[in-house]
Amino acid sequence: MRAVTCRATELRVEELPEPRPERGQLLIDVLRCGICGSDLHARHHSDELADITARVGYDGVFRSSDSVVFGHEFVGEVVEVGPKCTGRMRSGTRVVSFPLLRRDGAVHLTGLSPFAPGGYAERTLVEESLSFAVPNGLPDDAAALTEPMAVGLHAVRRSEIGRGQVAVVIGCGPVGLAVISMLKATGVRTVIASDFSSGRRALARACGADEVVDPAADSPFESSARAGHLTAAPDVFELAVGTMEKLRRLPFVPWERIWRVADRVGLAEPKRPVVFECVGVPGVIDDLMAQAPIFSRIVVVGVCMEPDRIRPAMGINKEIDLRFVLGYTPLEFRDALHLLADGKVDAEPIVTGRVGLGGVETAFDALADADRHAKILVDPRSEATAPAPVGATT
Amino acid sequence: MRAVTCRATELRVEELPEPRPERGQLLIDVLRCGICGSDLHARHHSDELADITARVGYDGVFRSSDSVVFGHEFVGEVVEVGPKCTGRMRSGTRVVSFPLLRRDGAVHLTGLSPFAPGGYAERTLVEESLSFAVPNGLPDDAAALTEPMAVGLHAVRRSEIGRGQVAVVIGCGPVGLAVISMLKATGVRTVIASDFSSGRRALARACGADEVVDPAADSPFESSARAGHLTAAPDVFELAVGTMEKLRRLPFVPWERIWRVADRVGLAEPKRPVVFECVGVPGVIDDLMAQAPIFSRIVVVGVCMEPDRIRPAMGINKEIDLRFVLGYTPLEFRDALHLLADGKVDAEPIVTGRVGLGGVETAFDALADADRHAKILVDPRSEATAPAPVGATT
Repeated sequence: MRAVTCRATELRVEELPEPRPERGQLLIDVLRCGICGSDLHARHHSDELADITARVGYDGVFRSSDSVVFGHEFVGEVVEVGPKCTGRMRSGTRVVSFPLLRRDGAVHLTGLSPFAPGGYAERTLVEESLSFAVPNGLPDDAAALTEPMAVGLHAVRRSEIGRGQVAVVIGCGPVGLAVISMLKATGVRTVIASDFSSGRRALARACGADEVVDPAADSPFESSARAGHLTAAPDVFELAVGTMEKLRRLPFVPWERIWRVADRVGLAEPKRPVVFECVGVPGVIDDLMAQAPIFSRIVVVGVCMEPDRIRPAMGINKEIDLRFVLGYTPLEFRDALHLLADGKVDAEPIVTGRVGLGGVETAFDALADADRHAKILVDPRSEATAPAPVGATT
Repeated sequence: MRAVTCRATELRVEELPEPRPERGQLLIDVLRCGICGSDLHARHHSDELADITARVGYDGVFRSSDSVVFGHEFVGEVVEVGPKCTGRMRSGTRVVSFPLLRRDGAVHLTGLSPFAPGGYAERTLVEESLSFAVPNGLPDDAAALTEPMAVGLHAVRRSEIGRGQVAVVIGCGPVGLAVISMLKATGVRTVIASDFSSGRRALARACGADEVVDPAADSPFESSARAGHLTAAPDVFELAVGTMEKLRRLPFVPWERIWRVADRVGLAEPKRPVVFECVGVPGVIDDLMAQAPIFSRIVVVGVCMEPDRIRPAMGINKEIDLRFVLGYTPLEFRDALHLLADGKVDAEPIVTGRVGLGGVETAFDALADADRHAKILVDPRSEATAPAPVGATT
């Protein structure tokens, strides 16, 4: 079969042997496979990635000397059912799969490990136990977005944001756009999105952002404060004493209960915004800690592989909560699929182009142009060698 | 009155004018005032501290060219009631106070601002609205610990730790010891404490730590894993797939609900430990992010004033939650006082010495010896020029 391999940063269309499903596995014809920002990054920085994941217990990420087939955001059609499957997935079923694969007793990351080639190929292997039939005739393009949308859903769930809290999304690449879509799908009323690119800001609007900000012209926090969404940098001490004194003037409240009431209703604190860091380059976390209002929660969704510098005293004086998130649970993966299939979330604006296997390298280059592209899908049956535009981006 | 001033890092006993209580204020005779690690730090780094707090909205912290009276952990006896007070605090009442003071319409940090001299003095001013009568005849030494114990209580509350979660306290100075005491007071079953000093480890035991570890000899995380308190660095992928497959073998669970059940009962995740960083020097946060098990919550209680280096990819791959905390709410301050007065928490082991005003500089030096001292109290009526030991430290 034909597949795109990456070895020593070089992408190449090659003829590879047909994969054979082992115990509990399915072989699928790939219908669409999204190009993820992490693929672009892994192409050039696989050794750092492999070092970091080895330190947290997984040593199967490819090294620059290995040959790997990228692709972990795919939808496919079952063409062969391996031994010891339950039989619930028959040939012809369209499925999306949690991208993990068993091989020789170990579990590997599909599309990032030489032991588990991914979806930039005519066919790939998936675990039956981690596969979900695509319901409601959801189109291939949308089904291929299950994985990135699960990333957004996981970030939103781990953020524990309330519907009345303000969300500020920094960076409107595919990850930021997935977060915006999922914030709106879960009912968050005010979502403010920030990106330097006007094309990406238009996509953020299409995904449901209530306000968009160009950080070159304005701070998303200051503009939100002017619009009344956020408390402008308050004097925390004045706030504490002022609130206590205001409360003491209320009639009929026994003195001893005043602080307890204040604590329960959160009167002593301004609204805590939730900031989603979806950029992933050094310096952004510290910059957000300095810019965000006190008591902000910063959810780090963007993956920064380099060491970074922060000022802990800034985090302490603002009581910042810095929450790092990764991936999604199988439940969130399944929920993302159903949110898409039930029409609860419209992710189509994210898809900005489509290419065949021969166009993957061109697509990698095109994704560097933030104004034109967000998510490009690989269609192994297509002959397109440059990303054919799908929707309008501006 | 006599007071200890600090100017350009120099500590000196000086004769200062008597403070006069303004509207809503009380003048108190200081009975005891704790020496806080932040005083030691502010003596040499006040300009950095002033810069950072100015950026979060408070510009009243002293600069190295100012003269300041330290001391924000005090208990005193009311000797004069200012105008417009409610009358509930009469002369002779022993009080502890939330260390904020109004001056010319602004609110200042007592003991860190030239506008609000602190408790290293014969007398000081407090707000009546932020003062609490010391109940149950709580001794002066213990009452003076209200403030540091409130810091511990706030850190424990903000950590949202459950009683069944394992707490790992890194650093057993006064802050770490307060955290340990409050963890045990709120019913957390397993508290593991780590410190290089054997004296401090003994204090940690006295404050209720279930296990103590010398990090020079062993990692608190590895020793906890051996003892079965924590999951040893698990393979997160194996864990996800293994749990899912185990669940699928359970009878009578409809397939579609399996993941939902797993998600609800948290089966797909190992125990999330809560780590309290109570050291506050550069490098500790990154080191903990690298050492702590996946899904750890790290509560940053130690104040590191310098810029620090972290590896965000490590935080992301482990889904670390980095929660910075500062101070306490008035309610927590009051609760800390009552926990002490009701005998729910015994903080006495923390006090390792007592000095008069003339011994403050010697006490600052003595506090550098972690093996001998944790908390030294200033007693303005004492003539001691070197910290007289109070309890055994080993």
